[in-house]
Amino acid sequence: MRKELREIINDNTTKKGKIFDYTIQILIMISLSAYAIETLPDLSNQIYDTLFWIEIVCLIVFVIEYILRLYTAKHPLKYIFSFYGIIDFLAIIPFFFMSTTGFMSLRAFRIFRVFRAFKLIRYNKALNRFHLVAKLIREEVILFLIVTGIFLFLASAGIYYFENKAQPEEFKSIFHSAWWAVVTLTTVGYGDIYPITAGGKFFTFFILMMGVGIVTIPAGLVASALTKAREMEEEAFLKDTEEKSKMDEKNVLKKGKQDNKS
Amino acid sequence: MRKELREIINDNTTKKGKIFDYTIQILIMISLSAYAIETLPDLSNQIYDTLFWIEIVCLIVFVIEYILRLYTAKHPLKYIFSFYGIIDFLAIIPFFFMSTTGFMSLRAFRIFRVFRAFKLIRYNKALNRFHLVAKLIREEVILFLIVTGIFLFLASAGIYYFENKAQPEEFKSIFHSAWWAVVTLTTVGYGDIYPITAGGKFFTFFILMMGVGIVTIPAGLVASALTKAREMEEEAFLKDTEEKSKMDEKNVLKKGKQDNKS
Amino acid sequence: MRKELREIINDNTTKKGKIFDYTIQILIMISLSAYAIETLPDLSNQIYDTLFWIEIVCLIVFVIEYILRLYTAKHPLKYIFSFYGIIDFLAIIPFFFMSTTGFMSLRAFRIFRVFRAFKLIRYNKALNRFHLVAKLIREEVILFLIVTGIFLFLASAGIYYFENKAQPEEFKSIFHSAWWAVVTLTTVGYGDIYPITAGGKFFTFFILMMGVGIVTIPAGLVASALTKAREMEEEAFLKDTEEKSKMDEKNVLKKGKQDNKS
Amino acid sequence: MRKELREIINDNTTKKGKIFDYTIQILIMISLSAYAIETLPDLSNQIYDTLFWIEIVCLIVFVIEYILRLYTAKHPLKYIFSFYGIIDFLAIIPFFFMSTTGFMSLRAFRIFRVFRAFKLIRYNKALNRFHLVAKLIREEVILFLIVTGIFLFLASAGIYYFENKAQPEEFKSIFHSAWWAVVTLTTVGYGDIYPITAGGKFFTFFILMMGVGIVTIPAGLVASALTKAREMEEEAFLKDTEEKSKMDEKNVLKKGKQDNKS
Repeated sequence: MRKELREIINDNTTKKGKIFDYTIQILIMISLSAYAIETLPDLSNQIYDTLFWIEIVCLIVFVIEYILRLYTAKHPLKYIFSFYGIIDFLAIIPFFFMSTTGFMSLRAFRIFRVFRAFKLIRYNKALNRFHLVAKLIREEVILFLIVTGIFLFLASAGIYYFENKAQPEEFKSIFHSAWWAVVTLTTVGYGDIYPITAGGKFFTFFILMMGVGIVTIPAGLVASALTKAREMEEEAFLKDTEEKSKMDEKNVLKKGKQDNKS
Repeated sequence: MRKELREIINDNTTKKGKIFDYTIQILIMISLSAYAIETLPDLSNQIYDTLFWIEIVCLIVFVIEYILRLYTAKHPLKYIFSFYGIIDFLAIIPFFFMSTTGFMSLRAFRIFRVFRAFKLIRYNKALNRFHLVAKLIREEVILFLIVTGIFLFLASAGIYYFENKAQPEEFKSIFHSAWWAVVTLTTVGYGDIYPITAGGKFFTFFILMMGVGIVTIPAGLVASALTKAREMEEEAFLKDTEEKSKMDEKNVLKKGKQDNKS
Repeated sequence: MRKELREIINDNTTKKGKIFDYTIQILIMISLSAYAIETLPDLSNQIYDTLFWIEIVCLIVFVIEYILRLYTAKHPLKYIFSFYGIIDFLAIIPFFFMSTTGFMSLRAFRIFRVFRAFKLIRYNKALNRFHLVAKLIREEVILFLIVTGIFLFLASAGIYYFENKAQPEEFKSIFHSAWWAVVTLTTVGYGDIYPITAGGKFFTFFILMMGVGIVTIPAGLVASALTKAREMEEEAFLKDTEEKSKMDEKNVLKKGKQDNKS
Repeated sequence: MRKELREIINDNTTKKGKIFDYTIQILIMISLSAYAIETLPDLSNQIYDTLFWIEIVCLIVFVIEYILRLYTAKHPLKYIFSFYGIIDFLAIIPFFFMSTTGFMSLRAFRIFRVFRAFKLIRYNKALNRFHLVAKLIREEVILFLIVTGIFLFLASAGIYYFENKAQPEEFKSIFHSAWWAVVTLTTVGYGDIYPITAGGKFFTFFILMMGVGIVTIPAGLVASALTKAREMEEEAFLKDTEEKSKMDEKNVLKKGKQDNKS
């Protein structure tokens, strides 16, 4: 019976497994929607009560899901400390404070309900290729982060030097200038902070000419790595097929020889 | 005669077919321009009358076009429920309310005139490659949408947590914060809503460092898929040419043998 | 002597040709700088006079350059109506009104001085590859422009429908809404016009999710085409080298045979 | 002993070398953090004193590092005038003014402390590939800068023509308009300066349709060059491996022959 349960929970190719998966996914989305609706101001008591009961139901289902995953896991301890195990646990933390302290503590622990969003990742097959992409560009991403870090520091220090006197309130320190650097180099440009001196504007021009290139590097990295990942997967697939067809050929030849002999 | 008409309407390689196609395309653009001009405030009655008669003429031509397409279609029902059939029908809906309720209802139904924009897609040959691109990256696009969805939710919930107390009016709920998340992660940054607390600014920094990468993924996907699609089309073309040339070679050889024999 | 002049003007590999090229390029940049400085308000008369004489010198040099290019051209008429011939002519138009109407007309015709910027393009060798890139993606760029056009129209019509009642001044007509669509879909987001209704914000979300993809398509197109162009150039180069080395081999063999015979 | 020191300083594969490298890197980051914290207004004297002593310690360590690098360098003069030599020297300039003029001059020379950020680059292995990328796209980057320059000039001159009369304060001259052009074409869009006339808005539309393409070219360039660089490195690696395995084969064959003989 444990084996049967394991198949339902972990194997999403069987019919029962699919029903289980989709149920969990829909409950996650309902739970997240309820969480978002709760933040709306001026909700009527009726709606609030409904949201409360939806949360109770979702919570109980996720607790049952956690127990079942623990029960059917080949190595329960390994599951508990795995990425998904921790996520599953964080998502049900409010449960442990429910019976003792009642309704209010459920509100206090509602931040843990956000972690349910991560539970959705489990059900996505295409993530494999992105794993490969991440592996391929890990080195460059680290480089990119270091370069971006140095670049942000230099941009912040530079604009502080140019604008601090003209706008002492906006460019109060390098940390305040760093907010400008982040908003500008990502090209968001809210308009709450921008240079007004000629020197600051000229500096911004140079920083942007170089920064737009740096900010767009990840796009280039992902693009080239994705092409590579796709090719690697296809090559692996082709190799598999070729080997199979060779095996088939050999078998046919063998059979032919045997036929000749006999 | 029906066959002749079908050639004119569906075959854009003949001279008559080209004239028909360009006429419809120009009328669509005239109709859309008239629609846009109508929304301008303080139009003189004369201009309004002109726009009205332009609309009447376009409408009648599109009705005739619809009837002709229906008449010449090999499977009329199939055409009616095809993508272009529905678009063609939506574009002429105002016609059915014209005679009975007169001029005013034409205004009420003018939203349907917007669908004429979709009629333009029919005349574009290069869309085929984008179909192939769409097919190649369908899986990644779905993944991208799920990841973007989760990411937007986490960004909204996070900024709500940081900014709700400092700016209760702007970050009223997670839904209001979602507007901030959309405007920020697409790097539009109108400046109507932005974090002012140190925590919110720091959170925005992290979200942007990760979000700029996520928003630029589609560019990478389209770039890599387009390269792939182009290669696939060229390979298919080369294969065709090779096969043809082989056939030609064979024919030449055959002929050569026959010549030798005779 | 005409032949010698032609070499100086058109051949940038000789020493004299290089000096001529760099002189013209530096003069173009001086002329454009003078043009920009002239627009500064509150200039002293002295600076103004200096800028005037700089312009006179540049103008005379460009007139001489035009006459020389005309004189040394193998087909003068062909040069006059070529892209660079027209640019060269537009850049010296103020000259023809100088003697008769004096200083003021020079100001009136100063817009033609802007065309001198295009003269700089002539001196760039790397433009060849971009010609090839433009050729490779011409079809897609046209498709992209049509799709962008349809998309901008639909976005404008949609936001007009949602926001016109709430902000009658900002979203006055579809044309006014088109300004919003352009500023939003390019992710510039000045903040002078943005949706305030829930419907308009939701519509913006959808438009952005699709629009960011459409706006980033050119980057993908250029990236894939540039990879292709580079490969094509390298293949062409390799082919050339191979053919040469084959020729060399043949020559060696031939020579070897001849040596054997003798 | 000099040789031993050289190994510690320049060889980051040994244990001692790693400790030396990480110590320097951590000190650089501490020094930069102290520099940024110093710019915060309203710091208590206690914090200020701590920051001062942190700076003194870092400065002394960097001076010792510089002396050691000079002492262990095979060609001391070459090191002094190398990129890293200059950076190392700029980072310790405040030291020379410390004893004579005391604390205040340390503040005056604190701008040199920013150069310590560049010292971090030395420790990044992945920069090699970006060197190759930079080499591959040098030609296109120069072209891109020239095209961007011409484009920025034309955009500035054009918007000046359209908006100068309507907004004489914002679009005061072509240089003021250039600020608009930079902020718009990089899609930052602070919202401090934007067109309000119909002509200016139309011009902005065209400039953006073309400019978004130009601004995204670097992304395409980096993407295609990175793919190329990766392939080149892999080919070089494969070639090496092949040659090695061939050598191994030969050796085996040789040995086999010798075995046969004996």
